[in-house]
Amino acid sequence: MKMETSFTRKLGIAYPIAQAPMAGGPATPALAAAVSNAGGLGSLGAGYWSPAQIRDAIREVRRRTDRPFAVNLFVPERTGAKATEDEIAAMNAHLNAYRAKLGIASDPAFSSFAPSFEDQVQVLLEEEVPVFSFTFGITSPEAMQAMKQRGIAIVGTATTVEEGIRLEAAGVDAIVAQGSEAGGHRGTFLGEAADALIGTMALVPQLADRVSVPVIASGGIMDGRGLAACLALGASAAQMGTAFLASPESGAHSAHKRLVLSSAEDATAITVVYSGKAARGIRTDFMRDMSGYQGAIPDYPIQNALTRDIRQAAAQADDPSLMSLWAGQGLRLATEQAAADIVRRTVAEAQAAIGRLSGLAGTGEA
Amino acid sequence: MKMETSFTRKLGIAYPIAQAPMAGGPATPALAAAVSNAGGLGSLGAGYWSPAQIRDAIREVRRRTDRPFAVNLFVPERTGAKATEDEIAAMNAHLNAYRAKLGIASDPAFSSFAPSFEDQVQVLLEEEVPVFSFTFGITSPEAMQAMKQRGIAIVGTATTVEEGIRLEAAGVDAIVAQGSEAGGHRGTFLGEAADALIGTMALVPQLADRVSVPVIASGGIMDGRGLAACLALGASAAQMGTAFLASPESGAHSAHKRLVLSSAEDATAITVVYSGKAARGIRTDFMRDMSGYQGAIPDYPIQNALTRDIRQAAAQADDPSLMSLWAGQGLRLATEQAAADIVRRTVAEAQAAIGRLSGLAGTGEA
Repeated sequence: MKMETSFTRKLGIAYPIAQAPMAGGPATPALAAAVSNAGGLGSLGAGYWSPAQIRDAIREVRRRTDRPFAVNLFVPERTGAKATEDEIAAMNAHLNAYRAKLGIASDPAFSSFAPSFEDQVQVLLEEEVPVFSFTFGITSPEAMQAMKQRGIAIVGTATTVEEGIRLEAAGVDAIVAQGSEAGGHRGTFLGEAADALIGTMALVPQLADRVSVPVIASGGIMDGRGLAACLALGASAAQMGTAFLASPESGAHSAHKRLVLSSAEDATAITVVYSGKAARGIRTDFMRDMSGYQGAIPDYPIQNALTRDIRQAAAQADDPSLMSLWAGQGLRLATEQAAADIVRRTVAEAQAAIGRLSGLAGTGEA
Repeated sequence: MKMETSFTRKLGIAYPIAQAPMAGGPATPALAAAVSNAGGLGSLGAGYWSPAQIRDAIREVRRRTDRPFAVNLFVPERTGAKATEDEIAAMNAHLNAYRAKLGIASDPAFSSFAPSFEDQVQVLLEEEVPVFSFTFGITSPEAMQAMKQRGIAIVGTATTVEEGIRLEAAGVDAIVAQGSEAGGHRGTFLGEAADALIGTMALVPQLADRVSVPVIASGGIMDGRGLAACLALGASAAQMGTAFLASPESGAHSAHKRLVLSSAEDATAITVVYSGKAARGIRTDFMRDMSGYQGAIPDYPIQNALTRDIRQAAAQADDPSLMSLWAGQGLRLATEQAAADIVRRTVAEAQAAIGRLSGLAGTGEA
């Protein structure tokens, strides 16, 4: 049975379920294709990838599915990242202690802190991806126009109502409402991330009242109860990340998956120490230690580049204490089911929850 | 039409809507009675009141309604509040600048920081209130037993799943799941409040899976869309506070009501500066100024007693910058409707939301 909303109609998919883009590994072509094949909207988290990596991943998804899927990119800060040479040197010196512990070289050199956004966008245009989603800001009018000319649907990310209003004015086709429960980076681009930690229950109806494009609820949604709840709040779809994080198709590190499956709802915190930008993840020794750092933490993407070798070496050493373990607050509901089974189960549970509600509202039974 | 759940059946009320106890003024006998008369569960926030004040308020509610209502108390910390004489003196000296600005006396004297919990409980027993709810911990087994013997239903407050499990083991009849969106004081009693800011969307299903007593969802619920969403998540009722804050029956200060009606979802923050305990309210100059305070902020209820004269004088001077403006994250949805109209509208909207969902799930229409 289908479950049709303004979002599923716009994209031509069966179910109002989007897989969160989860950049940095979890959102593999296999995961995106599995979700899309099951009737949801799979997504590649391509923010950290080079143009060549993005092209390969898109083609890999297309080998696995002919259904619509999304590719997510990170919009660079208009003002550029702010950090002085001294701040970067001080952070690097501090991080050398972790590097020594992991047995890797001190003071790694970088050619750049992040891939070129313009080059990434160019690949999406050339490949004519079905859906372009973006986070951390608003894509330039030129890029939006070029996407629209190729029939690419555009999805922005808001953490406040005002951000959603700006996204709609810029011409997006749908808006992800990222509630405070969500794992990974906060999409906040107006004001401070700390002031924009609005719970999904509060954010979705307030945003839905102010925009006319479909709202995709995200943050804390782990099953069909959550999907039904979001649709009741006025969303046209639910985006789920943590729910797919421990699936076999997810590219998350095995230690990350183990902790996702064994942690409780209060295991996470918001931190800037990994990347220079606020993100929610399972608390680690690195987060605890770095909270005592006296200097300034360089902005994203500088800090992200500075800690990359540490995170990679920790992953190789199977040491989650120094890895970034992005995850949301629904951890007790995480499963290791296959992605397609998660989509099917979520739809069935949502149908059941809606049936339960109908009985309760209509006849006085519950 | 009724809307029956395990919670409404247990309490003998028509609708699964509880009014949040909102201690400190908003939750008047008039508000509690209006909500109960409309078919919800009204509540007195009696935590700060003397036994005599509590008795008067209960009798006033009973003059206005014969329906069930709740009285909420604050469980004292078992270890007692922690603050040295020096810390209290330093805080008082710091606060004297605000007192001077408001033209009130320096260094006010206290006979006690808070009313006796045991004496408050005694009044509830003597008055045989229909429902006893509590926050900040777990009531003693003796008090719980005495309540049960009188047929008083008992409701505890949890901010994490573990707190809910402990409450059920202690014998409560229902558990309020307080999501991070909620206004006012955090009910956290195990661990740190900062680690227990779980969004309602994530907290409710995880708690509902682990306890068999009814779960009352709270935090960010402002209308029937929110009520339907909470029922979909597995809650048996929704508790709403901010939704009633600007109603004519609410005892909130007029400046508080004005700001509730004119603020957005991102206007609030969690602070400990008013009371020594974490609470969510609309950001004020006092919160901003005090965030730079270098010393230790005395624990609740000491800091609460220390700032009381300032808050009261600010209220008299109609100066919200020094008042505590507790509110949740659903602010854009606040109205000045009468409490009974809010209950009726919420039920009607929930029925409509459920009807919308049924169409979407059953026939492919949305």
